[in-house]
Amino acid sequence: MLFEKVKSDLLAHNSYMIGSGSEAAVIDPRRDCRIYTKIAESRNMTITRIFETHRNEDYVVGSRELARPTGAEIYHGAAIDFGYGNAAGEGDTFSIGTLRLRVLETPGHTKESLSYVLSDTAVSDDPLMVFTGDALFAGDVGRTDLAGDEMREKMSGMLYDSLHDKILPLGDDVIVCPAHGAGSVCGGDISDREYTTIGYEKEHTPLLQWSKADFVEYKKHEHLYVPPYFRKMEDLNLHGPPLIYTIPHLAALSPKAIREMQNAQILDIRSPTSFAGGHVPGSINIWREGLPAFIGYLLKYDDPIVLIDDFNLDLDPVIRHFVRLGYDTITGYLAGGFAAWFRQGRELETAGIWSPRDLAEHLTDPSVFILDVRDITHRERDGYIPGSHHIYVGNLDQNLGRVPRDKHIVAHCDVGYKGSLAASILQKNGYENVTNLLGGTHGWEGAGYSLTRD
Amino acid sequence: MLFEKVKSDLLAHNSYMIGSGSEAAVIDPRRDCRIYTKIAESRNMTITRIFETHRNEDYVVGSRELARPTGAEIYHGAAIDFGYGNAAGEGDTFSIGTLRLRVLETPGHTKESLSYVLSDTAVSDDPLMVFTGDALFAGDVGRTDLAGDEMREKMSGMLYDSLHDKILPLGDDVIVCPAHGAGSVCGGDISDREYTTIGYEKEHTPLLQWSKADFVEYKKHEHLYVPPYFRKMEDLNLHGPPLIYTIPHLAALSPKAIREMQNAQILDIRSPTSFAGGHVPGSINIWREGLPAFIGYLLKYDDPIVLIDDFNLDLDPVIRHFVRLGYDTITGYLAGGFAAWFRQGRELETAGIWSPRDLAEHLTDPSVFILDVRDITHRERDGYIPGSHHIYVGNLDQNLGRVPRDKHIVAHCDVGYKGSLAASILQKNGYENVTNLLGGTHGWEGAGYSLTRD
Amino acid sequence: MLFEKVKSDLLAHNSYMIGSGSEAAVIDPRRDCRIYTKIAESRNMTITRIFETHRNEDYVVGSRELARPTGAEIYHGAAIDFGYGNAAGEGDTFSIGTLRLRVLETPGHTKESLSYVLSDTAVSDDPLMVFTGDALFAGDVGRTDLAGDEMREKMSGMLYDSLHDKILPLGDDVIVCPAHGAGSVCGGDISDREYTTIGYEKEHTPLLQWSKADFVEYKKHEHLYVPPYFRKMEDLNLHGPPLIYTIPHLAALSPKAIREMQNAQILDIRSPTSFAGGHVPGSINIWREGLPAFIGYLLKYDDPIVLIDDFNLDLDPVIRHFVRLGYDTITGYLAGGFAAWFRQGRELETAGIWSPRDLAEHLTDPSVFILDVRDITHRERDGYIPGSHHIYVGNLDQNLGRVPRDKHIVAHCDVGYKGSLAASILQKNGYENVTNLLGGTHGWEGAGYSLTRD
Amino acid sequence: MLFEKVKSDLLAHNSYMIGSGSEAAVIDPRRDCRIYTKIAESRNMTITRIFETHRNEDYVVGSRELARPTGAEIYHGAAIDFGYGNAAGEGDTFSIGTLRLRVLETPGHTKESLSYVLSDTAVSDDPLMVFTGDALFAGDVGRTDLAGDEMREKMSGMLYDSLHDKILPLGDDVIVCPAHGAGSVCGGDISDREYTTIGYEKEHTPLLQWSKADFVEYKKHEHLYVPPYFRKMEDLNLHGPPLIYTIPHLAALSPKAIREMQNAQILDIRSPTSFAGGHVPGSINIWREGLPAFIGYLLKYDDPIVLIDDFNLDLDPVIRHFVRLGYDTITGYLAGGFAAWFRQGRELETAGIWSPRDLAEHLTDPSVFILDVRDITHRERDGYIPGSHHIYVGNLDQNLGRVPRDKHIVAHCDVGYKGSLAASILQKNGYENVTNLLGGTHGWEGAGYSLTRD
Repeated sequence: MLFEKVKSDLLAHNSYMIGSGSEAAVIDPRRDCRIYTKIAESRNMTITRIFETHRNEDYVVGSRELARPTGAEIYHGAAIDFGYGNAAGEGDTFSIGTLRLRVLETPGHTKESLSYVLSDTAVSDDPLMVFTGDALFAGDVGRTDLAGDEMREKMSGMLYDSLHDKILPLGDDVIVCPAHGAGSVCGGDISDREYTTIGYEKEHTPLLQWSKADFVEYKKHEHLYVPPYFRKMEDLNLHGPPLIYTIPHLAALSPKAIREMQNAQILDIRSPTSFAGGHVPGSINIWREGLPAFIGYLLKYDDPIVLIDDFNLDLDPVIRHFVRLGYDTITGYLAGGFAAWFRQGRELETAGIWSPRDLAEHLTDPSVFILDVRDITHRERDGYIPGSHHIYVGNLDQNLGRVPRDKHIVAHCDVGYKGSLAASILQKNGYENVTNLLGGTHGWEGAGYSLTRD
Repeated sequence: MLFEKVKSDLLAHNSYMIGSGSEAAVIDPRRDCRIYTKIAESRNMTITRIFETHRNEDYVVGSRELARPTGAEIYHGAAIDFGYGNAAGEGDTFSIGTLRLRVLETPGHTKESLSYVLSDTAVSDDPLMVFTGDALFAGDVGRTDLAGDEMREKMSGMLYDSLHDKILPLGDDVIVCPAHGAGSVCGGDISDREYTTIGYEKEHTPLLQWSKADFVEYKKHEHLYVPPYFRKMEDLNLHGPPLIYTIPHLAALSPKAIREMQNAQILDIRSPTSFAGGHVPGSINIWREGLPAFIGYLLKYDDPIVLIDDFNLDLDPVIRHFVRLGYDTITGYLAGGFAAWFRQGRELETAGIWSPRDLAEHLTDPSVFILDVRDITHRERDGYIPGSHHIYVGNLDQNLGRVPRDKHIVAHCDVGYKGSLAASILQKNGYENVTNLLGGTHGWEGAGYSLTRD
Repeated sequence: MLFEKVKSDLLAHNSYMIGSGSEAAVIDPRRDCRIYTKIAESRNMTITRIFETHRNEDYVVGSRELARPTGAEIYHGAAIDFGYGNAAGEGDTFSIGTLRLRVLETPGHTKESLSYVLSDTAVSDDPLMVFTGDALFAGDVGRTDLAGDEMREKMSGMLYDSLHDKILPLGDDVIVCPAHGAGSVCGGDISDREYTTIGYEKEHTPLLQWSKADFVEYKKHEHLYVPPYFRKMEDLNLHGPPLIYTIPHLAALSPKAIREMQNAQILDIRSPTSFAGGHVPGSINIWREGLPAFIGYLLKYDDPIVLIDDFNLDLDPVIRHFVRLGYDTITGYLAGGFAAWFRQGRELETAGIWSPRDLAEHLTDPSVFILDVRDITHRERDGYIPGSHHIYVGNLDQNLGRVPRDKHIVAHCDVGYKGSLAASILQKNGYENVTNLLGGTHGWEGAGYSLTRD
Repeated sequence: MLFEKVKSDLLAHNSYMIGSGSEAAVIDPRRDCRIYTKIAESRNMTITRIFETHRNEDYVVGSRELARPTGAEIYHGAAIDFGYGNAAGEGDTFSIGTLRLRVLETPGHTKESLSYVLSDTAVSDDPLMVFTGDALFAGDVGRTDLAGDEMREKMSGMLYDSLHDKILPLGDDVIVCPAHGAGSVCGGDISDREYTTIGYEKEHTPLLQWSKADFVEYKKHEHLYVPPYFRKMEDLNLHGPPLIYTIPHLAALSPKAIREMQNAQILDIRSPTSFAGGHVPGSINIWREGLPAFIGYLLKYDDPIVLIDDFNLDLDPVIRHFVRLGYDTITGYLAGGFAAWFRQGRELETAGIWSPRDLAEHLTDPSVFILDVRDITHRERDGYIPGSHHIYVGNLDQNLGRVPRDKHIVAHCDVGYKGSLAASILQKNGYENVTNLLGGTHGWEGAGYSLTRD
């Protein structure tokens, strides 16, 4: 289970990120929302839903901003007419892995305010936490003056009912996750408790112990300032604020999602040994340091690109390579790494690995076709393995006619990376018996064998 | 109020930092403790006290390390004789600004275990949170076997009393802050709830609903593995571990330097496919996320440790795992990654990889020995591949006599990582025909085959 | 003088950033261009010009991307028709502070290739460095095959002339700054020297020692691969690639630029003491932590906002506050901090500072008007300084009619920050005798004086 | 080839890191040396050697600190007896991969000064770069006064010979890498060229064109200040400074804790306006960028140092300045910034601020004493305000006898920072009527007034 409170200091705004399995959701995201996608990446999760507790008036909500790179669905209350997203109402439930969010309509602060009750269905349907938005804070409740003085009594009564009929009955042991902490202008006197429970609030917040009449009377006369920018926020948050970021962002994809993707270009960025040990059929193997040199040979600009890695480590610089070469359609990566593929028992392909000695023992074997894929200048300058044929790896795709389909192809380069790329190109094109010489010409000489020069 | 949970991933260790005004305290700090002083700096606070819930056995506690730059006082239980810090006992209270910590003696996991009850005196003396150490987790309680089998019944009874007489009575609405989360070796089945309350635990954790007799009986027979490094941790944490000051620097080593190193423990942290595709003979394969769980089973404390990776990406968190477990002799890594090895044409070893179908085709082959290296509780709970033999991977080294040397050994776990570790242990011990089942039992079922249950 | 080489690893692309005084320029920026604006910010410089050495074919140039947030002018060669930017030609010179860039037309790699000769006019007109693009590398020269085989001889001849007639004659002691380092596909055999000189290259690069005939003959037959993505790059770089970032970026502004800006809202984010000690007339003083609370009261959404700080430290979180509140028109900051203002002897305004004792001595002075600008609830709850009048700071602008213009106004809050904001609002509105009570009501009580309650 | 210049800003200290293959070396490392190991890690290199150009007197060299985690060997000149490391002498060569460093003995700045000539043997034995330490800078040469006046002529002659017999003959095309850039106290007038060559220096640095007699005559009479902390540095760098392991942590101190501290040196790092607006009595005001230049004049090594800032922003680089100068007793900072002081109503002191016009109106006022605290060379070169008296700010503490106690002292420098430092020194010494001229001589001229020249 993922649970992270993301605080925007000074605004005293709390957003929450929850997740389970490979799915995550964000409640009340802020506009500078890279922090959520970073958390998602670090956990191999994809943000699939965004929930708003209400139309915020004190900051620009980041729902649209976050929905753009993630494709997440946005939900908010139905009582006002938002210019974006979907309406959710009492009793609606949403699953995020084994987590479940159930919607409570809790008007009072605004008329469309929602609370979301979290339970972990792997344990029980009982509530574990509740995201209360601006209905209930630690030590305080939401302000009820923003709909105007004439509405104040009515809103205060609605808030009382939301609290006493919906939120407090959830149980003393339920953890309260409000949208604001101490210092927010959205409450008069929010406490600085970082975490609290319904039981603690019932016991220690006097406002919650009063009669409805006393509560409404107090709220009617509570003095709170209304900063003029609230109007602008309400307007932006109703219609959806302008977008500020357009940076490519990688989606965490399941094996199923990858298989169903149209025209996906599957790019395996693992090492030659890892590729040989097992890979997704049809993938191309370009190691990290080879990306700037070879993606431009092998990838189309218009089709989506999906990355396969072992551990999905440090993908940021990987993405930069694509951006620098204009591949703005870089799409996603296999969440959980290649293990996510094989743990489902999905189809695998392996490639052969030969050591220099293995090759030496087959040097005159007529069923073996040794394919040198180095740059021609290296072949000319450094020499070649006796009997090998040359096609530069960048041109291999266009020269398959020169590679016999009825032989065992042993591809090699100088070390083993481009050899693995060549092997992957051949396998993708239906060659069944393909091996990469680990060590390439360097390993060949290191193992005591000689290169030939013309 | 400052409240931060600092998690050490993979160890599933939780430390907590609390503060108020200009003072802060840390509960169960980890050894790489710069994170606490960073938080303190960002909040203009000074760490004045460090609290230990008990003498930890699964990681090196950072109390002395953190006390050095901060001058903070260290506190722990009085029932054993620590080589550093101060004793605290039942009812002792400590103020951190308006926060107050009250000590509960809660023996059972260890005899000197303490819990710390947090209240915010600015609001009330009532408890808001409790730091339970290894007494109470989300969904589980602490293990009681570490004091030895002869003490197990007594410790279990003490733990029952600590829970029922001290912790649970604090109130349903109190938030529980345990020392470990899901995945820790300090509990059998800790849930992954990030936050929980006493009320939620009382309701949903069966162990807390049992009679004392049933509880003790269960705890007496609970099966838990004891990694051998626990001895070292207990010793370091009793006397105070050596100061490290900074995360050790790893030397970039050439293949030659590694080969010439005396008693080098070569640890391959690549994926199972990468290991299978080629590796340094004599190396052990533990994937990144398995390091905290398995290095303590397989590595000696006194001999140098050398890492092999594909691309040497992001080694900093890797090093931290070693430091947290007291492996200060972590020495270096193969510069240039495994390719630096094979580009010299040096000796290679490969391991076999089988897909579920490969295994299915050999299920009755008498020359094949299927070795299940999962935790025994997973085998019992989830079932097993027909005909497989079981030895837990952590105990394999000591049980080689049960693995025939004249057969083709197909090791497997649930996914493929521990299977690769097992394969590496076997190869290191001279087994020549070793294969890892890629996908493990998950892949087996995913490919449409069935597991057997007794 | 600023000189930074920004390398894009693996592409082996070098861009360069130079600067002097408050101006900077970038040569051949990459597309992920935040690194340049970060350097500019850390040096209080504004990027005013971007120079391209040629239409690159191996990566997407970042000129347009960088021009958007900085407003910098883009320059490139005139021999082809770019879809953006300005043409520069032989002998054109550009000043960046005391630095001067002189254009050399150096065709050969492409027909519009330029080199830029740097001199520091504070020392001499003699060249110190030359940015050679893809004409001259360390150990190699640019490829001449990209214009097509039929042009190859001609391009090679042009390159020879560019080298021998333009670049090499600059002098042995001139430092060479090429667009690529070792590993680039833009040269056949670029050396890995990080820095080099014309003298070193003349001596050690055989290609530079050959006759024109030999040179052309060699270049005509040099074997180089043309990755297919080059076509896409040429197209993007000719017409200008799509923009990917739209994050607000602050311009480093001179005092003059600020004074000439229409409707600038000058926001002083320094401390109350710093504001009192001297400030730009007409500025508003909101301290960092007060920004989210008060900019929404005082700043208009449509007019540009300019920040004044002491040292321009850590402005990133400051910008975030504006973005979170939808102030996307945040524009710039005074480069060099407030000292840049007073070192020019520009008009200054100071505000008075009183200690609690100073106020105590004037408590009954009829010429003094004590203005309490705290939240009304604080005044009611905590008491007030005898004789003080109350207007909440957020409403002060609309209630100036209640503040006498013929008295000495002593504004105060609880500590001194909002008091300083109030003082700034009053000064902006023409009040001439305004003082802030340092310490506010807290300091008042701390100094031993009492607050009154009704 | 790895080549990185690592600059310590404000000290204007340059260290250099070079490497090839898997080996790297550092020339003149600074004490906070994690940056070098980070670079090494990112390049898969191991630092095997550390070279010192001379016993530095302006900062603590980091050789021992860096040797601890890396095991690197340290080398320096043989002419004095260092307490650590190995001696290197004329003609010694060291290989780092294909790079070679050759030692030149280049005494003059100190008697054991060495330069290191770099060549890349993969290309040629010819020099590519030279690390000149404090012998040759861009636009200047090293100071020769530090060995004492009686040695000055001799040292100057030695420096002339080192330059003309050893360094300049290396060739015009050799890149010069000096130990300091513009702003360093180790040269009188170092240029801000980031990179330069021997040819450029020979052509544009007049000092290098003079006869030996003229050179020695000039160097004998060159006016340079000797900060008192140089003695401490020489001592530490001769015997090897204590190891620090990490940047010290600062304690967050309350006003009370600061007041109760014995012998606390209170250092106010705020701006001149902030200091003037209110400060802790007895504090010294050195702005951030002035710290490396002035703490060595004004702070004792043995007494604790406490920082006062407005917002405690980004104190890490501030602490580094102290560590680099060996002030390991840097202790803490006022938590909450200066506001924490005045919100308690504690005693305050203010200083006067005058604009140029204020001063112009009092230019002939006999009660005003105008104190010019600039470097004497600036006064001589740029002129002075009529009637002003000169005492360099670094020497003010020792020359208070020359400042009348019965007058209004108006201190000034060129901008206002050193003027504020002077004002703080005067106030600390009991002067009651002290004002700082905001804008200094620059503001004076900017406001239309003239400076006088003798």
